[in-house]
Amino acid sequence: MSELKKAVILLSGGLDSSTCAAIALSQGFELYGISFRYGQRHSIELEASKNIAKKMGFIRHEIVDIDLRAFGGSALTADIDVPKNRSEDEMDVEIPITYVPARNTIFLSFSLAYAETIGSKDIFIGVNAVDYSGYPDCRPDYIKSFQNMANLATKAGVEDSSALQIHTPLIDLTKAKIIQTGLALGVDYGLTISCYDPDAQGKSCGCCDSCALRLKGFKDAGSADPIEYVKK
Amino acid sequence: MSELKKAVILLSGGLDSSTCAAIALSQGFELYGISFRYGQRHSIELEASKNIAKKMGFIRHEIVDIDLRAFGGSALTADIDVPKNRSEDEMDVEIPITYVPARNTIFLSFSLAYAETIGSKDIFIGVNAVDYSGYPDCRPDYIKSFQNMANLATKAGVEDSSALQIHTPLIDLTKAKIIQTGLALGVDYGLTISCYDPDAQGKSCGCCDSCALRLKGFKDAGSADPIEYVKK
Repeated sequence: MSELKKAVILLSGGLDSSTCAAIALSQGFELYGISFRYGQRHSIELEASKNIAKKMGFIRHEIVDIDLRAFGGSALTADIDVPKNRSEDEMDVEIPITYVPARNTIFLSFSLAYAETIGSKDIFIGVNAVDYSGYPDCRPDYIKSFQNMANLATKAGVEDSSALQIHTPLIDLTKAKIIQTGLALGVDYGLTISCYDPDAQGKSCGCCDSCALRLKGFKDAGSADPIEYVKK
Repeated sequence: MSELKKAVILLSGGLDSSTCAAIALSQGFELYGISFRYGQRHSIELEASKNIAKKMGFIRHEIVDIDLRAFGGSALTADIDVPKNRSEDEMDVEIPITYVPARNTIFLSFSLAYAETIGSKDIFIGVNAVDYSGYPDCRPDYIKSFQNMANLATKAGVEDSSALQIHTPLIDLTKAKIIQTGLALGVDYGLTISCYDPDAQGKSCGCCDSCALRLKGFKDAGSADPIEYVKK
């Protein structure tokens, strides 16, 4: 009997990372989730990540506490208003205000530690270069350079310099294509949350950049978004 | 009047990082320290890092909480005995038991976030490839690849792909040479701590690998180590 390969999945509770997990599962990996409590203003996405991990049969799911607030500087962690009701042109700024300094680098570094600990050589991250072109750490060149570095950083890499792979199955997909892929793999998007600014009951606002992208994605995919919105 | 350049200094409370800070200071940088509370079994090294930052006139010193214990796997964070009284041959194993998975990668990632937040493009880390040849993440190739990645990860790197530099002034120095350099720059080594297993009063054990390297370094440098030992 061949042993299943272990994959570390960065799980945010959002649509992309859930789809990413479904893809890893369809490729025959056992799923080991990692999520981060990083001073988000709401913890609803961590609840979502737990529900997703449970529903999708993750072997383990680690929630790691890290404090990015010490460094300030982003609408997702500091007391700055999340932009609302922006046009696509307005969203297409060079670096969005919701950018967190070095966030993906920190997340991937912890994922690397986790992978090394459990003996996994495969990390899945749902970054996307289409809708998040403004984030430097969502670009393919960045991911490739992280992988190079990771292979030099670890025991696994000392033994085999191409041992560790960072998988980015969504990197070139539109939001509509991501949703179609996930639906075909049976992802329950009703468990996911994308909103930057949900209300106290966890309902998505429907007008932040992330809600706008999600709603447009479902529309373009010809499907209905199963989650509830305050307004859409 | 020209503005001083800001440097982020990874400060462990040990001999190497303190020397590294003194070198950055001698090169005209303003010092911004970053230290980590990462499930060490003793907090004496954080106290040492605070004292060093104060003595050396750091502008700021951030202590970041991170929990590596979730990932297990090292004598420095888990309940495994620290090896004692080993010969140099015994120490020269491929990967020491005191290796923490991806530790330097995690530390450098936070330093990168800090650097980006304060507008610094210079990170100093006291890694050493001579005495720590067993740690994959102390090798020059690793540091270079982290720098490449960091320049692709950040706003600074988007504007100038060689903007950010990881400085490793100790990488090729013997412990004796590090000590001589630090003494010439006025480092107060009495404030530093290197021991993997100090006693309750903070006295160094004198027989773990780190104490052994330190004591040999002072001996080879022809100088007396100002700290107290239980036994040496």
